[in-house]
Amino acid sequence: MSTSKTELKDLGKFKLIDLLTENFKTKKKSSTYGIGDDAAVIDAGIYYTLVTTDMFVEGVHFDLTYAPLKHVGYKSVVANIADITAMNGTIEQITVSIAISNRFTLEALQELYQGIYTACERYEIDLVGGDTTSSPAGLVISITAIGKVAKEKLCLRSGAKPYDLVCVTGDLGAAYIGLQVLNREKKLFEVDPNMQPQLVPYQYLIERQLKPEARADIIQLFEKLKLLPTSMIDISDGLASELLHLSKASNVGFTIHEDKLPIDRLTYETTEALHLSPTLCALHGGEDYELLFTISQADLPKIEGNPNIHLIGYITEPTQGLKLVTNSGESVNVTAQGWEPL
Amino acid sequence: MSTSKTELKDLGKFKLIDLLTENFKTKKKSSTYGIGDDAAVIDAGIYYTLVTTDMFVEGVHFDLTYAPLKHVGYKSVVANIADITAMNGTIEQITVSIAISNRFTLEALQELYQGIYTACERYEIDLVGGDTTSSPAGLVISITAIGKVAKEKLCLRSGAKPYDLVCVTGDLGAAYIGLQVLNREKKLFEVDPNMQPQLVPYQYLIERQLKPEARADIIQLFEKLKLLPTSMIDISDGLASELLHLSKASNVGFTIHEDKLPIDRLTYETTEALHLSPTLCALHGGEDYELLFTISQADLPKIEGNPNIHLIGYITEPTQGLKLVTNSGESVNVTAQGWEPL
Repeated sequence: MSTSKTELKDLGKFKLIDLLTENFKTKKKSSTYGIGDDAAVIDAGIYYTLVTTDMFVEGVHFDLTYAPLKHVGYKSVVANIADITAMNGTIEQITVSIAISNRFTLEALQELYQGIYTACERYEIDLVGGDTTSSPAGLVISITAIGKVAKEKLCLRSGAKPYDLVCVTGDLGAAYIGLQVLNREKKLFEVDPNMQPQLVPYQYLIERQLKPEARADIIQLFEKLKLLPTSMIDISDGLASELLHLSKASNVGFTIHEDKLPIDRLTYETTEALHLSPTLCALHGGEDYELLFTISQADLPKIEGNPNIHLIGYITEPTQGLKLVTNSGESVNVTAQGWEPL
Repeated sequence: MSTSKTELKDLGKFKLIDLLTENFKTKKKSSTYGIGDDAAVIDAGIYYTLVTTDMFVEGVHFDLTYAPLKHVGYKSVVANIADITAMNGTIEQITVSIAISNRFTLEALQELYQGIYTACERYEIDLVGGDTTSSPAGLVISITAIGKVAKEKLCLRSGAKPYDLVCVTGDLGAAYIGLQVLNREKKLFEVDPNMQPQLVPYQYLIERQLKPEARADIIQLFEKLKLLPTSMIDISDGLASELLHLSKASNVGFTIHEDKLPIDRLTYETTEALHLSPTLCALHGGEDYELLFTISQADLPKIEGNPNIHLIGYITEPTQGLKLVTNSGESVNVTAQGWEPL
């Protein structure tokens, strides 16, 4: 046993994963791609099986003072769907494991599973297994998703090429701002338990935080448009963090434009009211579960005018790094400050 | 939201799982078998994909005062291998998710992963993904295993028929007794921190508890013997509990013989020294990760004389329930008191 002591807080999530897995090489012929993408890719003969897993911890990923258990269940499934979607795949099954302290009742867990079942219904997924155990404190949910993708349609993080175009779906930053609104109301409530939370005007933001959706619809759109992204990732930790993942995996640089970042009007107005920068929220706010992908320039006509897809920049040589061209025309470096609970 | 409050301690693990999943029906054509077996069965075209998942919680499943992290990692993988093995399948890949409090260092986690990698090496498994997150307290490990089985070789819990023979591999109760020895030494240590733990004489028992093995070798033996069990399950919660699972899934009764229960000599002697009943330890002690399976009588010659396989009884009509014929010739009912941390 080593006597040196490296504190985890000095590492961050991705460095820790790198250090824990650096010496491990896959050996099975069926393990086509292992660690390093949104999902593992297993050769199932005719198609690829996709496997991804996410863990959600009370007090880290969700706060039961404002997140109803039904939404916690729903969102846990959605996060996994987003990972399968990011491989251009379709989710088929999930397993759900929970560790629960004795402060939870059967009725509380039935609410949690109601949310899980609602997501299964909405996204046509089967719950096929899991584990249930006790925990000394709090709730931990671990979900594994199994999906599939036709071999020729698989999208990895590593396929982006210089001069490809960079796209995102939907809008960014709303889930993060939703969380700020919820935290603000929680603090006010702690000071004055008689206050009525002012949540109605922020409904869209709060829904994006508590009950997000995954963009399985976009995979169907790609199919219809006969569009195959050159690389793809889901935006769970923040746009900047995901761009850096693509950049590292594809060995390319990125230039994105501040004025192209899709920000919903309510997000924009609320960031201003909270004295936050809408651009920084769009870049670094996590949990939007939108898709970030790159396409070759020849495919531009396929997405032009589509309200679901926004062109935000283009790929450069790796030496260029990750640049943001601001509204004032300056080019600044972007670094990851993503949502990394560790 | 229901206003009734049902305490989880009044339910037990299996009743809770039943209640949470009773209204969920699988819909995908590929979901061949869902909840209710050791692993989910997914139709992958040429073969079946098997998926199982287990969660391990510090303070519930392991105690880091005596379990080295390396062993915790190893055992977590083994428990999943045992589930795939129980379907007559071969494990291929795992994903590993961990939630960790900041009291763990990088070096501690590297030890945990060293155990995981050692199990991967020993059982020829690829680690293909996972998640790493923080926890407010303690360590939670969630492992999902993916395996495969030829369609005609799949073993379920539901295939046992009256007059089939009941077999177990290896020996039973040792892991439970190993835990009692460790707990005894821990208590002595708490009273007198200068004491030297007396563990050497109990090495086999302690290894069975801290670093068990899964019976992947038996699946190869079945292949060699051209033996296909009619039903199978792994013994993780105790023989009696697993017999009841087979009984329920196959709708049959069981008669087993006390004098046929395979108990290692050291287990036997240590149960006596601890004033425990060796039979009760074999029936209700969990975590042996041996296999319990049934075969048709015509297959008896294939296992006779094999030192790894013990014939312990036979299947009866469902009305007969679960009976133990004691050494004194009495027939008594057996109920589950398995290791159910909930």
